[in-house]
Amino acid sequence: MTYCIGMGLEKGLVFVSDSRTNAGIDKIARFEKMRVFENPGERVLVTLSAGNLSVTQNALNLLDMRISKDAQTASLWNVTSMYEAARLLGDAMREVREHDEKYLREKNIDSTATFILGGQIAGETPRLFLVYSEGNFIEALNDTPYFQIGEIKYGKPILDRMINRHSSLAEGVKCALISFDATIRSNLSVGAPIDLLVYRADSLRVETRERLMDDDPYLAQVNREWDQGLHSVFNALPEHDW
Amino acid sequence: MTYCIGMGLEKGLVFVSDSRTNAGIDKIARFEKMRVFENPGERVLVTLSAGNLSVTQNALNLLDMRISKDAQTASLWNVTSMYEAARLLGDAMREVREHDEKYLREKNIDSTATFILGGQIAGETPRLFLVYSEGNFIEALNDTPYFQIGEIKYGKPILDRMINRHSSLAEGVKCALISFDATIRSNLSVGAPIDLLVYRADSLRVETRERLMDDDPYLAQVNREWDQGLHSVFNALPEHDW
Repeated sequence: MTYCIGMGLEKGLVFVSDSRTNAGIDKIARFEKMRVFENPGERVLVTLSAGNLSVTQNALNLLDMRISKDAQTASLWNVTSMYEAARLLGDAMREVREHDEKYLREKNIDSTATFILGGQIAGETPRLFLVYSEGNFIEALNDTPYFQIGEIKYGKPILDRMINRHSSLAEGVKCALISFDATIRSNLSVGAPIDLLVYRADSLRVETRERLMDDDPYLAQVNREWDQGLHSVFNALPEHDW
Repeated sequence: MTYCIGMGLEKGLVFVSDSRTNAGIDKIARFEKMRVFENPGERVLVTLSAGNLSVTQNALNLLDMRISKDAQTASLWNVTSMYEAARLLGDAMREVREHDEKYLREKNIDSTATFILGGQIAGETPRLFLVYSEGNFIEALNDTPYFQIGEIKYGKPILDRMINRHSSLAEGVKCALISFDATIRSNLSVGAPIDLLVYRADSLRVETRERLMDDDPYLAQVNREWDQGLHSVFNALPEHDW
């Protein structure tokens, strides 16, 4: 499995993804789930992907090939809105699935896949989309400032509790790391290293991109202090006299 | 959906279940997921159920009918070990599924269901089982002191963090209610009232059985103080200077 979070906050965007992929529990490998398309001063687009790896990789391959073939063809490098970028990505996924799905289904292989796509193109504000397996997509608005894909349930309660549109980028990162910690503790198939990208609104460049290993000092500190804090709060809760 | 937790602790057993059932999000009704078989001084057995309601209800109906027909027939009221009780329950589920599955599958209706079965029969220590859809079952031992069924993922991280075999019954109840709060916040199809049964080891009777409504003062206090405590710990965590 995979776990990825994208947050659309007032101050910018936060992207976090794990880097484990598996086909059965005995075949675990590392693949980065984050792709970045950056033209400094003009655009930053980030994709996070979950689901069938051949589908997500090849959807991106299709988009890459089109760029090199012809500068006039619509691509993630030249569309003028995030909406168009989301549509391109959804269409590319449809193309790959139409090409492969029949063969995968014969072997009962799941061909579903999802993308989180976020970023900013000069002239727009930062935007965040969730692109479904079927190629359709939705945008994060005020009520739902984040999207998750992959193994989403373990780490959802803490996001629901802590994150809203007004959260700072640093709060977003903290909360995403806690959400990852909850997921990694409960599910073997999600694991470090964790890829992190923080996009400051209107910067139009990638200023912060980190790969956090298991022993990253900040990650370890957040996880340790969170665990200690939770135990303190838990122990202080009243006990009923049943 | 449904959410149920059973814990097997040194001091006894804790059972918690929600009471919502739905066939699609627009058909939500209340059904108690907890059944109690008590012969004070001799046995207490508790079942929690999730999945297809016709399967779990009728597995219990089959067991009930056998009791009334013939006192010699093996039933939850006369078996001499929890192991035999788990096998009876699994066999009853197999019988119902064999009878119904073909017709359900024709309509793409999921006939899977699971039970948590726990309790104590005089002469044994308290025991806790998870009975799978296929009728096979496993027992909670030291490493895994709890079972969950239904919508299990949202509320799993807090159990993994807080509960071990040595936890007190009051800690078990506190943690189960927090686990329910996380699940209810994240998933519409799980809801109060929450049924709670605390079984003290070797008591061989039900001393504590409560139905907690949304506005139960203890439930509200635990949820409020937990939420406030989590926000305090979260705010005190270090922020990285990215």
